[in-house]
Amino acid sequence: MSENLCDIGFIGLGVMGKNLVLNLADNGFKIACFDLDQTKVDAIIETDQEENKTDKARVVGCRSYTELLSKLAAPHLLILSVPAGEPVDHVCHHLIDAGIQADDIVIDTGNSLWTDSVAREEKYKGKFIFFSTAVSGGEVGARFGPSLMPSGDPYAWTRIEPVLTAIAAKVDPDTGKPLVSNIPGQPVTRGEPCATYIGPIGAGHYVKMVHNGIEYADMQLICEAYDLLRKLCGYTPQQISEVFKRWNEGLLNSYLMEISAEVLAKVDDETGEPLVDMIMDKAGQKGTGLWTAVSALQVGSPTQTIAHAVFARSISSLKAERQQAAEALSGPSSQNDADNAELIDALEQALYCSKICAYAQGFQLMDMAAKEHGWQLEFAEIAKIWRAGCIIRAGFLQSIANAYISNEDLINLLLDPFFAEQISNNQDAWRKTIASATLAGVPCGSMSSALNYYDSYRSAVLPANLLQGQRDYFGAHTYERVDKQAGRKYHTEWAKPGQPEVKIKR
Amino acid sequence: MSENLCDIGFIGLGVMGKNLVLNLADNGFKIACFDLDQTKVDAIIETDQEENKTDKARVVGCRSYTELLSKLAAPHLLILSVPAGEPVDHVCHHLIDAGIQADDIVIDTGNSLWTDSVAREEKYKGKFIFFSTAVSGGEVGARFGPSLMPSGDPYAWTRIEPVLTAIAAKVDPDTGKPLVSNIPGQPVTRGEPCATYIGPIGAGHYVKMVHNGIEYADMQLICEAYDLLRKLCGYTPQQISEVFKRWNEGLLNSYLMEISAEVLAKVDDETGEPLVDMIMDKAGQKGTGLWTAVSALQVGSPTQTIAHAVFARSISSLKAERQQAAEALSGPSSQNDADNAELIDALEQALYCSKICAYAQGFQLMDMAAKEHGWQLEFAEIAKIWRAGCIIRAGFLQSIANAYISNEDLINLLLDPFFAEQISNNQDAWRKTIASATLAGVPCGSMSSALNYYDSYRSAVLPANLLQGQRDYFGAHTYERVDKQAGRKYHTEWAKPGQPEVKIKR
Repeated sequence: MSENLCDIGFIGLGVMGKNLVLNLADNGFKIACFDLDQTKVDAIIETDQEENKTDKARVVGCRSYTELLSKLAAPHLLILSVPAGEPVDHVCHHLIDAGIQADDIVIDTGNSLWTDSVAREEKYKGKFIFFSTAVSGGEVGARFGPSLMPSGDPYAWTRIEPVLTAIAAKVDPDTGKPLVSNIPGQPVTRGEPCATYIGPIGAGHYVKMVHNGIEYADMQLICEAYDLLRKLCGYTPQQISEVFKRWNEGLLNSYLMEISAEVLAKVDDETGEPLVDMIMDKAGQKGTGLWTAVSALQVGSPTQTIAHAVFARSISSLKAERQQAAEALSGPSSQNDADNAELIDALEQALYCSKICAYAQGFQLMDMAAKEHGWQLEFAEIAKIWRAGCIIRAGFLQSIANAYISNEDLINLLLDPFFAEQISNNQDAWRKTIASATLAGVPCGSMSSALNYYDSYRSAVLPANLLQGQRDYFGAHTYERVDKQAGRKYHTEWAKPGQPEVKIKR
Repeated sequence: MSENLCDIGFIGLGVMGKNLVLNLADNGFKIACFDLDQTKVDAIIETDQEENKTDKARVVGCRSYTELLSKLAAPHLLILSVPAGEPVDHVCHHLIDAGIQADDIVIDTGNSLWTDSVAREEKYKGKFIFFSTAVSGGEVGARFGPSLMPSGDPYAWTRIEPVLTAIAAKVDPDTGKPLVSNIPGQPVTRGEPCATYIGPIGAGHYVKMVHNGIEYADMQLICEAYDLLRKLCGYTPQQISEVFKRWNEGLLNSYLMEISAEVLAKVDDETGEPLVDMIMDKAGQKGTGLWTAVSALQVGSPTQTIAHAVFARSISSLKAERQQAAEALSGPSSQNDADNAELIDALEQALYCSKICAYAQGFQLMDMAAKEHGWQLEFAEIAKIWRAGCIIRAGFLQSIANAYISNEDLINLLLDPFFAEQISNNQDAWRKTIASATLAGVPCGSMSSALNYYDSYRSAVLPANLLQGQRDYFGAHTYERVDKQAGRKYHTEWAKPGQPEVKIKR
């Protein structure tokens, strides 16, 4: 009765897994489901019965790995949604015991560290094909269309592609904007899918990691703008919400700007105060933002705005210390004599320029990592699949896609004529905003790190020549010369003050 | 003939090893030496014969590990100066084969990653006592007095202490300044030694790693000051050298300031130009500065000025890209209408404040790492052993030592009354300098990251409340409330625009 076999075996029915199953079902796939917790299997059958408007069962429950495999057409296609780390290997071993075959495919959709995925492909070679896809968009994205960053064996991809493109978020090709349906059983079936093959195993999760690093920076930049509006202009959360709503109609249009306006407009039921004032200003940081900054340091890619966003979370978590320091440490008055309307317009421009630099850093990091790992990343495609489904979705990403479409060898987003002009037109306001904040004592470290990135990047000569001189002086590290062949090393015998007489014998 | 036995067995006679041996010999220790390269053994015997003013042999050459052990009084004390990594274990295994005993001590003096030292103590337990000491000061320091950061078994330390304190750099207890002798055979025998027991194995190398991270920041800050003097004031390297010499007499007195003045004064023999203009402005970064920034991210300690210094090196290395970007990207004129003398005075204050913040970040990182690893670090002692022998030696470190002497529970250097006042007195100039650089388009990312650290740290309320709201909105990450018990988590059911009707079932 092969017509009753399922298309996909799904393992792990947590929040993300369950929503991915329903998304798959809405898109016409028949899914065999398994979870160690049998109540979760029962729950998805029940939900499917409520939501299923067709006359056939879309979801089948299984009680063992063996039963799961028996319900699938061969070669088997399995999707995992289990916690990253050891549980992935646990499931893989059970699938081997249950008789999975060498041409079967297992797709890991968890938040795995990219290097773990690389190790697993190697580890399971010959037993089955280990493939991975990063999933962005949280539970809503999983249910109605996430942004997907798949990577692994390119031959396996030809089998996987129809499944992932079906469930991915979709973009209107004419406007570049998300096409959204949140009605069960009525998925969006037109538009450009936010799923593209990223490259060899690990590449997809790496790209997702950088997505999250950019997300850290984007969020922190918006927070700094909020803080400046509050402390320099004396605006209330409600007023700032209105400013953000207006900005969301312009260059700064994005999901994060939209939800920031919503958060700021929210009134606390309990106290009647703006909810944001009741939320503790301590943010956690031990995740993908951290991984991105660490990778940037290791690859040697200047990603200071993303790193600064991570550090901003660290310093936020030291609430008690900050309260003590606020008493002990002096600063200038943050009152602002300038015209609020003028300051707000300048701030919009400052935020826009800073955002361009944060994204430029993220794409530069992917580029440098790709060179190190031998990946051929298609940056236009990556920008396109971030236009919908994921947290950093924004109108802006269409401009990034356009930059890489018009020049696929673009070495830095800042060098794209459109973005170069955008910054050129807006940089005066950017500089003035940061100078005002600096004088008024309101921290805006991510914005100023972005400006410093811009100013360093456009400096033909940086003071690293003095630095190389220092290093040669105290450690004989040698230096290159501007007038000699690259790679040739020079060393100066510096006369060392206070220690002139003695030559150390080598 | 036990009177002929040596005090110390020394393995590895590279530049650092050879100088350490001569330093030990000058301080009255008799050393048996071994190196896989027999010519190095011969060379040190020859150097010793030239330098030895006593009537006894101070250094004995050995041709095998077995011979080395046979020349030593038991329990054996061995010092390694071999490249970090595999060579350390290679030597340890040979020592085991040669019959090293459980109560013998092996001191690793290499640039080992601190976690490797931790693993080695465990690995060699029962075979011998593995101990490590970080050595700062380069070859000159090794020869005439380095700064030493030893860590490991505290009982072993009682045997090691007389050796390391003898060879360490010395500080005049009255002035806090280095006592220097660079004459072979005439070591400094008075003053406070720059060697103190740091803690359990690994702690010493961790502290040395942070020393180097601070060094990265200090160097970059000086480079930014140089760049501003050049681009804003139009000063020549020779003029800037004079400014730095003057600063070196004041609050900014330090070895790095002193050598920066020397580097800038140096004329290139070949072209007659200032040498700094002939040095390529590309700096390497794959070392301890990188490790410090990575550790800071992992520990959650805000160390943005050190991280920025690492990124500044990364961006410097993109020379060809920067030259292209300099053509393509616009910026303001960096001409400065202000009075140069005024600007230079302000810059001195800005550099001083930034430096305080960089050191505050380094000490904060050590504090947070110590809490994580259960180390009891004595910050006054650490500041004291950095007053001489190492690269960041500076008058300034006496003030840091004083801060921790007067309050050993000080949670941040910024909260010390002396430093709080210093910044209070100098911050106007600090802010104005950064604002001027920002408007003029000259990057000074480390200085402005330092100011942002200060302004964030003294903010009782940071905009992380909005950030927590965003995270709860898109990912149900929950938040704490300012009016409720710490640790209690709250979640808001946000009305999500564009997706209002459907509740996702959990």
